[in-house]
Amino acid sequence: MQVEIIITLRESILDPKGKASHHALENLGFEDIKGVRIGKFIQLEVDTTDPQKAREVAREASEKLLANTVMENYEIRIPDNA
Amino acid sequence: MQVEIIITLRESILDPKGKASHHALENLGFEDIKGVRIGKFIQLEVDTTDPQKAREVAREASEKLLANTVMENYEIRIPDNA
Repeated sequence: MQVEIIITLRESILDPKGKASHHALENLGFEDIKGVRIGKFIQLEVDTTDPQKAREVAREASEKLLANTVMENYEIRIPDNA
Repeated sequence: MQVEIIITLRESILDPKGKASHHALENLGFEDIKGVRIGKFIQLEVDTTDPQKAREVAREASEKLLANTVMENYEIRIPDNA
């Protein structure tokens, strides 16, 4: 089944990519956009039908490799159509 | 309100980052992971309380700047707690 991992920079960490995109959007006339933060979206295909097992594999993979837990937060989501 | 934009490579496009992460995870013993695809997760703070307006701003920002629509798909989500 498919699991989604959303990795974002911790609030306290400066987000230069987000700032650059925000600036570019303002130049394109997007005045309603007050902030932009950019992170990673990871889709794992896990060989199980058990959402709990899939969530645990994703958590472990995030802790061990995919997320830099000093600077980043990660959130695990199981899509409705998983 | 906050809007999420999920940007992923089109299925037909090779995902070297995803392949590299998958290989590294296999080396760490994650045998249950059958595939990894990596994309971008963008959070926009839009100056409106109207979800429809926020969705439209996100769509336009994706089309004009944030997504490379030749190689990427984008999906707009309004989080429940937006």
